[in-house]
Amino acid sequence: MFIHETKIRVGYADTDQMGYAHHSNYAKYCETARWEAMRELGINYKEIEEKGILMPVISMKFDFIKPAFFDDLLTVKTIIKNLPKARMIFEYELYNESGILISTAEITLAFIREETRKACIPPEYCLQPLMEYFFVKEFVK
Amino acid sequence: MFIHETKIRVGYADTDQMGYAHHSNYAKYCETARWEAMRELGINYKEIEEKGILMPVISMKFDFIKPAFFDDLLTVKTIIKNLPKARMIFEYELYNESGILISTAEITLAFIREETRKACIPPEYCLQPLMEYFFVKEFVK
Amino acid sequence: MFIHETKIRVGYADTDQMGYAHHSNYAKYCETARWEAMRELGINYKEIEEKGILMPVISMKFDFIKPAFFDDLLTVKTIIKNLPKARMIFEYELYNESGILISTAEITLAFIREETRKACIPPEYCLQPLMEYFFVKEFVK
Amino acid sequence: MFIHETKIRVGYADTDQMGYAHHSNYAKYCETARWEAMRELGINYKEIEEKGILMPVISMKFDFIKPAFFDDLLTVKTIIKNLPKARMIFEYELYNESGILISTAEITLAFIREETRKACIPPEYCLQPLMEYFFVKEFVK
Repeated sequence: MFIHETKIRVGYADTDQMGYAHHSNYAKYCETARWEAMRELGINYKEIEEKGILMPVISMKFDFIKPAFFDDLLTVKTIIKNLPKARMIFEYELYNESGILISTAEITLAFIREETRKACIPPEYCLQPLMEYFFVKEFVK
Repeated sequence: MFIHETKIRVGYADTDQMGYAHHSNYAKYCETARWEAMRELGINYKEIEEKGILMPVISMKFDFIKPAFFDDLLTVKTIIKNLPKARMIFEYELYNESGILISTAEITLAFIREETRKACIPPEYCLQPLMEYFFVKEFVK
Repeated sequence: MFIHETKIRVGYADTDQMGYAHHSNYAKYCETARWEAMRELGINYKEIEEKGILMPVISMKFDFIKPAFFDDLLTVKTIIKNLPKARMIFEYELYNESGILISTAEITLAFIREETRKACIPPEYCLQPLMEYFFVKEFVK
Repeated sequence: MFIHETKIRVGYADTDQMGYAHHSNYAKYCETARWEAMRELGINYKEIEEKGILMPVISMKFDFIKPAFFDDLLTVKTIIKNLPKARMIFEYELYNESGILISTAEITLAFIREETRKACIPPEYCLQPLMEYFFVKEFVK
């Protein structure tokens, strides 16, 4: 299990007239956290695309437990539980500054070839660091 | 079961560098469709808020079957299957111009009092037209 | 002078905690209005891109005179005063439902080749209907 | 003259199908940079609102010199040249990772009372740290 934490500040544009961060923004928060998590593993999503692979989101689900407010510095925990096969699942826990869990999410991405737009297996570039993490680093622990 | 259809055109700002409508926008498409559906029932969400009730989203899930592209005129079908109690569930089906189902969603909203931010029952203003629809119009059919 | 009117409804996600449509959304409103204006002239921006030409925004300025609110059905007036050369200038006037001018804008777009990302002259496909409008229809009036 | 620098990473959702950060996002980048600049001066915009003052944007203009791309870590320079009177003007320079100026902007905000939504003078809470900066720190230099 790989866990990564990113800090994300709720912008004013993210709020709605209820005074809450609008729910549509959580998909963006998780996206930012996702690529930061991958960066820590040595994977840059920009490079994945440059190698001709795209990772579109094919499903997402969110539970909103408590609202987030303007200027809140959220902690977004990205969790990868398994090595990706055709799909890669990211789980999320979002905490506010008081350490209270305000939202959970699960987002599934596919691997597709840019040219054909057909599903493919994860590229070596992406799989290698994940395998190293799951089979080496986790084992050492 | 109440079903309503809204047309929504995918804007250029909605696209990402994959050339797809970014997944975060679907929450906005469904929100627009939701209040248009309610408008057809004679319920204006703006008025719900003016009466001191807010309807925050407490969960959402989306399946993305096929991508949506810039300038696509989507048909968003909003489905209300049951009278709301503490919560109100909206189901969605999104179709592209070829009539192909590209996405499904389920979004759950709570009713809360603006002042206390505590859960409450649906206001009369909102429940009345729904009851009329579910018990009168549906029965007549 | 070509003038076109589009109706745009302010979404809930567009609002901020001030209760106003956040200023960043106006660029999207004008973009939607711009391509609707061009559509009326028989020009589809999607087709411009399919022909290998992109039209990035190179400058924009907005004056916000009065706020727009959730559910407001705005009238966005797109004005093309001159035939485009290397650049194309769109002017805007946004009105609320009471007919009050709430914002004005001026947005300038360039024409660039998708392949080289270098500036180019407007494609025939885009220029033809504009010339027809400016030299024929305007003259007849 | 007060100058502040904030780093902002271009998210995937910010891109459009041209592969550029969509122009509407720059208003959000500048907003984030603005409140970070103010935070450095000891002013928290959240607290300004809690004291009953709102600062809506009343005009903005942007020049887009070069595009920003996904994953770019932009440097947003916020410049306050003068003490605010009825209005507060923020100037911006955005640089990419190569140190190249990609955009400039000027955004003007008003001070209004939340209750009346009428213009007012800047609150003491906001003016004090600015005066201290402009008259004391600048003088010492």
